[in-house]
Amino acid sequence: MSLVVQKFGGTSVANLECMRQVLAKVKRPLSRGDKVVVVLSAMSGETNRLLAMADEWAAQPDPAEVDSLVSTGEQASVALFAILLKAQGIRARSVLGFQVPIRTNCAHGKARILDIDGSKLHTMLDEHDVLVVAGFQGCDDCQRITTLGRGGSDTSAVALAAALEADVCEIYTDVSGVFTTDPNICSTARKIDKVAYDEMLEMASMGAKVLQIRSVEFAKKYNVIVHVRSTFCDEPGTIVCQEDQMEAVLVSGIAYDKDQARITLVHVEDRPGVSAQVFSAIAAKKILVDMIVQNPSKDGKTDLTFTVPRADLKQTIRILEGLKYEIGFGDLRYDKHVAKISVIGVGMRNHSGVASKAFQALSDEGINILMISTSEIKVTCLIEEKYTELAVRTVHKAFDLDSENGTPNCSCP
Amino acid sequence: MSLVVQKFGGTSVANLECMRQVLAKVKRPLSRGDKVVVVLSAMSGETNRLLAMADEWAAQPDPAEVDSLVSTGEQASVALFAILLKAQGIRARSVLGFQVPIRTNCAHGKARILDIDGSKLHTMLDEHDVLVVAGFQGCDDCQRITTLGRGGSDTSAVALAAALEADVCEIYTDVSGVFTTDPNICSTARKIDKVAYDEMLEMASMGAKVLQIRSVEFAKKYNVIVHVRSTFCDEPGTIVCQEDQMEAVLVSGIAYDKDQARITLVHVEDRPGVSAQVFSAIAAKKILVDMIVQNPSKDGKTDLTFTVPRADLKQTIRILEGLKYEIGFGDLRYDKHVAKISVIGVGMRNHSGVASKAFQALSDEGINILMISTSEIKVTCLIEEKYTELAVRTVHKAFDLDSENGTPNCSCP
Repeated sequence: MSLVVQKFGGTSVANLECMRQVLAKVKRPLSRGDKVVVVLSAMSGETNRLLAMADEWAAQPDPAEVDSLVSTGEQASVALFAILLKAQGIRARSVLGFQVPIRTNCAHGKARILDIDGSKLHTMLDEHDVLVVAGFQGCDDCQRITTLGRGGSDTSAVALAAALEADVCEIYTDVSGVFTTDPNICSTARKIDKVAYDEMLEMASMGAKVLQIRSVEFAKKYNVIVHVRSTFCDEPGTIVCQEDQMEAVLVSGIAYDKDQARITLVHVEDRPGVSAQVFSAIAAKKILVDMIVQNPSKDGKTDLTFTVPRADLKQTIRILEGLKYEIGFGDLRYDKHVAKISVIGVGMRNHSGVASKAFQALSDEGINILMISTSEIKVTCLIEEKYTELAVRTVHKAFDLDSENGTPNCSCP
Repeated sequence: MSLVVQKFGGTSVANLECMRQVLAKVKRPLSRGDKVVVVLSAMSGETNRLLAMADEWAAQPDPAEVDSLVSTGEQASVALFAILLKAQGIRARSVLGFQVPIRTNCAHGKARILDIDGSKLHTMLDEHDVLVVAGFQGCDDCQRITTLGRGGSDTSAVALAAALEADVCEIYTDVSGVFTTDPNICSTARKIDKVAYDEMLEMASMGAKVLQIRSVEFAKKYNVIVHVRSTFCDEPGTIVCQEDQMEAVLVSGIAYDKDQARITLVHVEDRPGVSAQVFSAIAAKKILVDMIVQNPSKDGKTDLTFTVPRADLKQTIRILEGLKYEIGFGDLRYDKHVAKISVIGVGMRNHSGVASKAFQALSDEGINILMISTSEIKVTCLIEEKYTELAVRTVHKAFDLDSENGTPNCSCP
């Protein structure tokens, strides 16, 4: 007998018809004699409806009360799904965050899970074949309801799988798995069978938004095997696991991100503390700086280039102009028509030549590289935005990621 | 400093505008320096919406899951109201049934409160001026959410007032208090300033549906002073309290109930056990028998007459016909055009002549009395339904209950 955790999002439980499809997914492991812990989100649109009410009631609604309010969304969906299961004669019950309990800190709206004591759930599993647990919610030490922030249900599912030592954590989504790149811009993208936690983290942060990034961190920390798969078909999706559980692959995927803007401070005085001053001022406004490059100094002056999310460009410029006198720089240049393209793969830890192959491929198409940044498992190039699609297809092909038949190897939508 | 419990029903919290009116009510004791525990129902229509979903999901939805589902209604209303309070700078928070905790048995959908430990709430009241407690819900010993059944929020409020030893429990309704009789059929009905628990119990069971009957039992048991008053005006309503806290009044009010049907079993064998057989069979189907009269036996035969709710008449007849051979009776007669009229007053405990005065008043108008039943504080007559309004007005006048100016003594709607 195995223990399977299955997580379904809001569109999967939007109404009775959708829940019947979820029921079919739950019955599959049940029919093998397995036990199932189902983690559900609120019915599609419900969280937004509740948040809109909170905003109508007050300009800055109290975060603790907002948590108690929005957590009713998951409470309703798990009760309804348990009603459906019990009507089928399945031994099931719903379990709310405080009933598990899923202990979190008290950072309302973005709480972090402190621990989950699996013993109560294991006792419940003695008497039930399916536990339907409310995702997204927990309970702090004062017994107040907390929520984990957007996409928190993925984290709930992985954390529960870890606490219960489940055999697998299946995350059902509207795509059939993780792809070598975005199939919308590269028709030869392939579904990846297995991907390492670290690769998934790099892909997630690059916009391959299949899994919430915190849930991947959790899975990595507790070594939970995550199976990302489609709600709409029965074919296997992508397994997210440790590197050593995978076959050696040099490069797993190509990610891109158009939400970038580049800023260059020209002729910055090259003295200790300048960079710290610049980036502390930006960080103080919670703006995330991504790539940073500093040219070698010349005549005691240097150029400092970095990228920020495009929406934060204006604010960043204002911050820097405010610092001009203090820091002393010659000019401020920016470009918001840039994009990042990243080659990701744990295999490059042990193989050289990945970066040069990527550069060559881009160069062959006449695509100029504006900035370069590398990590152990990633090579990222900043390019002009207009070349994004071409760059993705070119690099995808250069690393032999194209599927044989030129279509994603899953027949489902 | 006093502690005031205030309860508001679903129509009072139906939307932001309504909640603002509730806010004004809460501010009144606050401005006197009192602390307030507000008990709220779900927003109007919400409980029915959720129950309808449960019924759509399964023919017989699991009662424990239904409780978890419908309890989201109160959870949402208390969170929203707390958001409103906090936005006004009032030190407030919401409190759910499990957070109080309101301990109940596990009879889902109709749970009974076992106890409320007021200590946690008292601690919360050290830091808050208003606690907004979810009505209608509790928590069993397994930490599952329970609900108290329809109108349960009244009971929540009274039970909380008892546990906290509050100075008063204000129940806000859409009427301005308890009346000597139904103002809709008797324009001279007066609002009663004070009414005894026992009188209120008799009135509630007779259809004066101002307060849920269980809440009155609770108030009596724990000696909670209940103030029934209007959401729409600021005039005092009716105080429900112990007899000894009232001025002596012979008769407090006249109640009536048209939801009655009379059944007579003619020529029943007068042997031990027959009545038990009849009424056990009816009770087994959860049908409530109200008045029962048995004529003196003649030739070893008697007539057995009783009343049941009109909706249960058909089923009761079927049950009795099924017993005909076993019991042996000559004929079964029934009449569904009957009504009950009751004269209620704790004063009649020490005064004779109440019954005869009522009979005389009815007789003066030519109204025939079909059945009579009396208790310590009540005289009830069954009459033909068509005379109901006339009988109420006649008896109301006979006991000098008419208001001086012929209109209810409250100017609000």
